[in-house]
Amino acid sequence: MVGGGEGAFIGGVHRMAARLDDRWELVAGCFSRDPERGTRSAAALHVPPDRAYPDVASLLAGEAARPDRVDAVAIVTPNASHHAIAHACLTAGFHVICDKPLCTRIEDAEDLRHLVRESGRVFALTHNYTGYPMIREARAMVAAGALGRLRVVQVEYAQDWLATALETTGQKQAAWRQDPSQAGPAGALGDIGTHAHNLLEFVSGQHVAQLAAQLTAFVPGRRMDDDVQMMLRLSGGARGMLWASQVAPGHENGLRLRLYGEAASLEWAQEHPNQLRVAALGEAPRILARGTGGLSAAAAHATRLPPGHPEGYLEAFAQLYRDTAEQIAARLEGRAPDPASLLVPGVEDGVRGVAFMAAALESEARGGAWVAL
Amino acid sequence: MVGGGEGAFIGGVHRMAARLDDRWELVAGCFSRDPERGTRSAAALHVPPDRAYPDVASLLAGEAARPDRVDAVAIVTPNASHHAIAHACLTAGFHVICDKPLCTRIEDAEDLRHLVRESGRVFALTHNYTGYPMIREARAMVAAGALGRLRVVQVEYAQDWLATALETTGQKQAAWRQDPSQAGPAGALGDIGTHAHNLLEFVSGQHVAQLAAQLTAFVPGRRMDDDVQMMLRLSGGARGMLWASQVAPGHENGLRLRLYGEAASLEWAQEHPNQLRVAALGEAPRILARGTGGLSAAAAHATRLPPGHPEGYLEAFAQLYRDTAEQIAARLEGRAPDPASLLVPGVEDGVRGVAFMAAALESEARGGAWVAL
Amino acid sequence: MVGGGEGAFIGGVHRMAARLDDRWELVAGCFSRDPERGTRSAAALHVPPDRAYPDVASLLAGEAARPDRVDAVAIVTPNASHHAIAHACLTAGFHVICDKPLCTRIEDAEDLRHLVRESGRVFALTHNYTGYPMIREARAMVAAGALGRLRVVQVEYAQDWLATALETTGQKQAAWRQDPSQAGPAGALGDIGTHAHNLLEFVSGQHVAQLAAQLTAFVPGRRMDDDVQMMLRLSGGARGMLWASQVAPGHENGLRLRLYGEAASLEWAQEHPNQLRVAALGEAPRILARGTGGLSAAAAHATRLPPGHPEGYLEAFAQLYRDTAEQIAARLEGRAPDPASLLVPGVEDGVRGVAFMAAALESEARGGAWVAL
Amino acid sequence: MVGGGEGAFIGGVHRMAARLDDRWELVAGCFSRDPERGTRSAAALHVPPDRAYPDVASLLAGEAARPDRVDAVAIVTPNASHHAIAHACLTAGFHVICDKPLCTRIEDAEDLRHLVRESGRVFALTHNYTGYPMIREARAMVAAGALGRLRVVQVEYAQDWLATALETTGQKQAAWRQDPSQAGPAGALGDIGTHAHNLLEFVSGQHVAQLAAQLTAFVPGRRMDDDVQMMLRLSGGARGMLWASQVAPGHENGLRLRLYGEAASLEWAQEHPNQLRVAALGEAPRILARGTGGLSAAAAHATRLPPGHPEGYLEAFAQLYRDTAEQIAARLEGRAPDPASLLVPGVEDGVRGVAFMAAALESEARGGAWVAL
Repeated sequence: MVGGGEGAFIGGVHRMAARLDDRWELVAGCFSRDPERGTRSAAALHVPPDRAYPDVASLLAGEAARPDRVDAVAIVTPNASHHAIAHACLTAGFHVICDKPLCTRIEDAEDLRHLVRESGRVFALTHNYTGYPMIREARAMVAAGALGRLRVVQVEYAQDWLATALETTGQKQAAWRQDPSQAGPAGALGDIGTHAHNLLEFVSGQHVAQLAAQLTAFVPGRRMDDDVQMMLRLSGGARGMLWASQVAPGHENGLRLRLYGEAASLEWAQEHPNQLRVAALGEAPRILARGTGGLSAAAAHATRLPPGHPEGYLEAFAQLYRDTAEQIAARLEGRAPDPASLLVPGVEDGVRGVAFMAAALESEARGGAWVAL
Repeated sequence: MVGGGEGAFIGGVHRMAARLDDRWELVAGCFSRDPERGTRSAAALHVPPDRAYPDVASLLAGEAARPDRVDAVAIVTPNASHHAIAHACLTAGFHVICDKPLCTRIEDAEDLRHLVRESGRVFALTHNYTGYPMIREARAMVAAGALGRLRVVQVEYAQDWLATALETTGQKQAAWRQDPSQAGPAGALGDIGTHAHNLLEFVSGQHVAQLAAQLTAFVPGRRMDDDVQMMLRLSGGARGMLWASQVAPGHENGLRLRLYGEAASLEWAQEHPNQLRVAALGEAPRILARGTGGLSAAAAHATRLPPGHPEGYLEAFAQLYRDTAEQIAARLEGRAPDPASLLVPGVEDGVRGVAFMAAALESEARGGAWVAL
Repeated sequence: MVGGGEGAFIGGVHRMAARLDDRWELVAGCFSRDPERGTRSAAALHVPPDRAYPDVASLLAGEAARPDRVDAVAIVTPNASHHAIAHACLTAGFHVICDKPLCTRIEDAEDLRHLVRESGRVFALTHNYTGYPMIREARAMVAAGALGRLRVVQVEYAQDWLATALETTGQKQAAWRQDPSQAGPAGALGDIGTHAHNLLEFVSGQHVAQLAAQLTAFVPGRRMDDDVQMMLRLSGGARGMLWASQVAPGHENGLRLRLYGEAASLEWAQEHPNQLRVAALGEAPRILARGTGGLSAAAAHATRLPPGHPEGYLEAFAQLYRDTAEQIAARLEGRAPDPASLLVPGVEDGVRGVAFMAAALESEARGGAWVAL
Repeated sequence: MVGGGEGAFIGGVHRMAARLDDRWELVAGCFSRDPERGTRSAAALHVPPDRAYPDVASLLAGEAARPDRVDAVAIVTPNASHHAIAHACLTAGFHVICDKPLCTRIEDAEDLRHLVRESGRVFALTHNYTGYPMIREARAMVAAGALGRLRVVQVEYAQDWLATALETTGQKQAAWRQDPSQAGPAGALGDIGTHAHNLLEFVSGQHVAQLAAQLTAFVPGRRMDDDVQMMLRLSGGARGMLWASQVAPGHENGLRLRLYGEAASLEWAQEHPNQLRVAALGEAPRILARGTGGLSAAAAHATRLPPGHPEGYLEAFAQLYRDTAEQIAARLEGRAPDPASLLVPGVEDGVRGVAFMAAALESEARGGAWVAL
């Protein structure tokens, strides 16, 4: 693991997610740019001192030299460092599990795509919301034509934790996200807008082809956007809207997706992820529940517990770790992976996410004009 | 009443709304352009034959000549006829209650504005959703600064009844709405988009200053838009999004409004109109209920029943009739009306609604460009 | 109308309900035991002075003598007076619309049953919740066997307005309900418990055969029960529970019914009355909505508006008035009434309600023992 | 671990729960009474062959002899075997984590209580729903007096998976639960009724003092109850109702708790466990959310993720494992445990649960009479 030391948030999430299904063990890492903090973090995580490295280069060198070298490297650092670290890992021949967004510049994204193709390494991008069983169900339904031709898509991701200038108070999570040198040029757009974009594409099976955006920094003094609004035109003819906000009081982690087709609609909300509302035209809406009979194989694959025993954020995140483990194990064992494990977002999704950010920034710069991706 | 004969929908709604609070009696009308249907309708409505008129001109002439002439004329015909009828009523000196939208052309709207000002008649525009107590509560909260400076507004109005080409089946409600000669050039935009626009302005206290829109006719063969998406910039600095659709399976009459300010947010959904969700930053969201203590005078004014005894669509509609009756009674009695009765939308709101439609149509014609109102 | 003068609650509800569908006009009444208040009330209600009577006897005598005598008398007084007034009305040959509960003593209830049978008059008991379209849908579903053999029933009716000793503050609605001389011996039991009982029987088609109850007066100093809990055994083999409380903070008018059969369940909540949740075993729960296609004729009969345009408490109440008008009109016109109008609760339901109260009081007196009805 | 081999359900849950917080490692076990199945299970679980034992006696003997002996034994077998295994473990000096209910006979429960007291071993009973943060918040609120004196309690636990005779189809989970030799004399009562009872006592701080119950086996041919209804009188004066059913179509794992005090109420539903509805008398209901500011230390202690990132069933279960680890670690390290870790239900709760079952069975045997515990 690179990053995720004391005070970090997403690193701990990755570790719990990795443990849940007993397919991973954390054995080495470079947990902080601050060596002392890194050492303390390693000790707290039961990582042996000789595998607690001071920097990425020594991590890769050290592990490459061991017979029991790590199977993969998880990158859980701020966005702007993803490219360099991932580039190094891939070049050194390691499989990579990288937090989103892939990186902050389109040329870097393309470089990673190239490297992944060339190296043949597994590259998992933790757009974790794709791990929810009912999201996989939704995707399967759309793919099977249950909605008919898609007409309208609505996706939103609303939070309120940055409704004040939290980044000026020393709160670490806020600080790096509103620091362009660490987060890149996109604020809410990069942090949560890319999740909304990815989820929309994952479920709809269509790509964002054009967009018109207005990005706003509502909090006085803030340098990067904290609210993102856009209209979308999708590759398959659907049209829609996307809203991502970190200044919306009353929203905690309100990622919500709605798709409307000729024949039916579906609606899913991340804060109540075990349900999926499906409404066929002319019929009473149904509430599908995780774990019940009649769902797709893709949903069943991502399900651990019977209906009514709620699974949550960590379980969805764990699904990406479990599926990535299966992909890597299959390579080690020279066999084909379970096809259900192949839904993990990868470098291609990452490239599209970076292009999405670039287009939104360009649209805003051009006064909200339409921009093609 | 003009319109509202056999087979009509909104005319019957107006009549129930008018009856509920015992302030109105239907005594005369011109219920159909088809004289036979008009006569049958009058009989069914207990309107005496001598006050069942064949056309608007004879209605106005006949009533003007009576000592017990009607207090007001309700116009419940298709959109494209509103202007001519309202013009005639105002010119003849009658108060008017007119269904929305005001009319279909901006010059006609301005003509009516001019006539209302000049005649001094009461002109009520039945944007009926403004009659809900919790909408009036929301407006009062925003006006009192409970949300702080508004940042983001989200309004949507989704239905599914036109998801197929219902207008080709002889269904009367669908047919006139998708016939430009009766409905004007705006489809879903005029039918429900104007409601969303009005509600947003009514509650937020801000006007739509600029918009960028994509209007779509998703149903094959349809001439007018059945789906409306737009981004908005409001006069007070808020930014937002508006979605109105009649092709969204699973939505019946899904008008929903959300406003986000610096300090708090509020959320309201028409299908569960007795509740209002309010979330102050840093506090647990609260569910305010109609009829409970602590609400504004404006909400109490529009409330008939204790909490938990749900009021609905007709009660909200009736509120406009009750408030309009108070306005007219005050004039007849030479006194000031109850200030709470003055919230009924009027001709100014109607003019802005027509301008909103025009701007959206222009934006669509210009490929989704931003247009100022 | 008898009762319903200034300061009353349910009288005003009856009047709005009667007006909504244009089948009734209020033309005479005895609105208060206090003559001055009665006169003022009559004036406010546009009842001519010569038909504003000082007492029930003169009302009945006066109206009986008129050619345009009232079609029916609505009784909206406190419970303990229902019997005497209804007895007088029936004896005088008038149809009766009586608020619930029928009366407070089983012998009085049986007397009224006898009189109704003998007189052949229409007797409507305003268990108003039976007027909701989705309740009628639920009843039709059960009757059609959609749930299979019923196993478990759960009904509750929770309020919080008597969580403090409101009756000691001069609040009129609280005062009479907690005064045994006006309300009879049952507190929450009579006020809302009987509604729950009636609704359960109306929908399930089974009668309460045995019960064990604990009645409590939680508020210090209160003389009558404010909380009612019981277990039930129904005539058709179902078993269940009933809770009625007026001391449950957070509940406004929380009447909720759930029925579980071998094959399916249904759930309905009065505060969101336009929906009915139906869950067939092994299938995803469906949310049925008022006004949609595929519902029963009984539901359609009680529906005024399209889906998504919420109807509420007044509309349901109005349904009883409309149906009663149809029953009376059919008699006047010498024809069979619309069968759909016959669902209005009548004197038989009232007798069972009184027996239910008596059994609950007896069970409580016997320490919560089981009592047969 | 004892039990939890192939085909088991709750054993796998215990293992995931134990892993999540990295405080436990599964190193030994006796996974099945069938040796071959036990061996296969051990291999699948990465338990070394020399620590995969054929029976409990050899497990205890083998581990007792090792320097790296297990820290505790988890018992995840059917109910009727809990006593003997727990007795053996305690006698051999091991800490115990035992699935609920404690056992099936009151004398066995008292024996275990005696042994726990005498041995000084940690004994955790996995009434896992007590591990939810919002349940701990609810308990803290009640204890702090936020609800005032409790008046009414309502608890229910409804499922539908046994609505047909699943136990006759070879489904292992159903089969043992409806086999008195494995499950004891209580069906739904023991399986889920005890959870409801425990949760009620955990949050309310009161014990069930008296009850009257009707237990029913609705499914033809079934030997044990599949539906449990009761009225309760609590030690602190509250009165309430409990319903547990496994034949309620439309319910998956519907554990729901509502408490009503003089001043406020709270409501929690297991299927949406991250929210807690709190309604103070005279105020708008508030929706408290896991992870937000202002919650109790007890809730914060059980929280891993920020608000809006849903935690679920496994996280709550894991909390009991984490807290038990802390209790054991404190003993090993000769220090006082974190007080927040002491909320794990123990043998006393188990004894009361067994007494609760006995009282309910006695009440049913006596026709639903009131029985004191």
